[in-house]
Amino acid sequence: MKTLKVIKIGGNIIDNEGALHSFLEIFAKIESPKILVHGGGKLATQLTQQMNVEVKMFEGRRITDAQTLDIITMVYAGKINKSIVAKLQANHCNAIGFSGADGNTIVSIKRPVESIDYGYVGDVVKVNTDTLVILLNNGVTPVFCAITHDENGQLFNTNADTIASELSIGFAQKFKVELYYCFEKNGVLKNVNDDHSVIQHIDSKTYKGLIDEGIIADGMLPKLNNCFHAINHHVNKVCIGKPEMLFNDNSKHTTLTK
Amino acid sequence: MKTLKVIKIGGNIIDNEGALHSFLEIFAKIESPKILVHGGGKLATQLTQQMNVEVKMFEGRRITDAQTLDIITMVYAGKINKSIVAKLQANHCNAIGFSGADGNTIVSIKRPVESIDYGYVGDVVKVNTDTLVILLNNGVTPVFCAITHDENGQLFNTNADTIASELSIGFAQKFKVELYYCFEKNGVLKNVNDDHSVIQHIDSKTYKGLIDEGIIADGMLPKLNNCFHAINHHVNKVCIGKPEMLFNDNSKHTTLTK
Repeated sequence: MKTLKVIKIGGNIIDNEGALHSFLEIFAKIESPKILVHGGGKLATQLTQQMNVEVKMFEGRRITDAQTLDIITMVYAGKINKSIVAKLQANHCNAIGFSGADGNTIVSIKRPVESIDYGYVGDVVKVNTDTLVILLNNGVTPVFCAITHDENGQLFNTNADTIASELSIGFAQKFKVELYYCFEKNGVLKNVNDDHSVIQHIDSKTYKGLIDEGIIADGMLPKLNNCFHAINHHVNKVCIGKPEMLFNDNSKHTTLTK
Repeated sequence: MKTLKVIKIGGNIIDNEGALHSFLEIFAKIESPKILVHGGGKLATQLTQQMNVEVKMFEGRRITDAQTLDIITMVYAGKINKSIVAKLQANHCNAIGFSGADGNTIVSIKRPVESIDYGYVGDVVKVNTDTLVILLNNGVTPVFCAITHDENGQLFNTNADTIASELSIGFAQKFKVELYYCFEKNGVLKNVNDDHSVIQHIDSKTYKGLIDEGIIADGMLPKLNNCFHAINHHVNKVCIGKPEMLFNDNSKHTTLTK
């Protein structure tokens, strides 16, 4: 089986023009097949303010109302996605931008309303890889923004980490899939204030211990749950660290395996 | 050779939610292979005003500065394109949204500065159909917004009529191509104030006569030049009229042939 690399970048790369430029140069050189998934960064918030649209939050989480969904669609699928695609083309990487609506690739349902209605936020229920496999086999690199749809014409804001893991799971029967989460730290840290304290390897068994010890908590918990969800659904390995891990074997990062 | 329909819709359909909805229902039913090209409509202008960005005009034509290009990319490739793609998916038409950067499909160069610098406006120099042919042969319907790129990372605002005609020309060696321009009138009119005065057929010979008589003038002249450019480059026929022409054979419209 061929190896497929699914690589997710977040706001810390997208918000920094120089960092994004360097990352895309590196990404273009990575052997195909590969898929890029990008988050949104600060641009959507900036545009929301510029347009005097109220940012609605609940317990630190954003509520996606209709206006906010429009802004997210414009920024993620428009400005960020097309700018990344054009830059990859300049680096001779034949990219095509995708939302989950394009090619009906990622289907979601509105997040059920429990104590709170998150608005137009979608939870992924299905990934269709047929068209993507054809493109990957023809040297095309799909670039996904964090937008999905419900097959009934409604777009949804969806967590980019989730999109990366669900796509990886969707391809796991057809490729040996490696999932890379690039962020601003060297990996999962034993001491959150010490970027050298990287835990280089975590498996399902040591993961439970790290949670019990309180070493994995807060924001890392949903991120790592996402990762192990992928691992438990036939994704070969998941790596977390700075983009350097993609091309420098000696670069410290965290590898998660079953 | 299979017949490929390239269908362009403009602002009069995009700006009217009901009209767009009806059009997409019809479009979804048209036999594949087919390509949709959409213009921008009033949304970009509205957003420009909402963001307090100055609209720069010269002799009635918009200058695309960097901020305007950002807005156009957000509105055309983001909001409009993804909303059309999601609606087509809801109508069981497997659409994928494209700018000219996606798949390196439409390459342009910055319009040369003569008396005036139009800014980030691109003139098409190359169309790459290989990836699109693969998708068309796999039942996918590409949906193009009016944005191109220069292969060096720069996006350009490009006339949607031109995109439709250049795409049609690009496919003319591989398909029998029919190009449809949908707009608010029944076709090319003898009397611009009488929507019943449709000229049902124009060929290269009668075209010259209509220009000499002053019947084709103003805005119709560049539009029809675009059409005959396609006709002269192996596009089988070009039709101009209301969207009804696509499904109602008795609907009056103008057909252009060599």
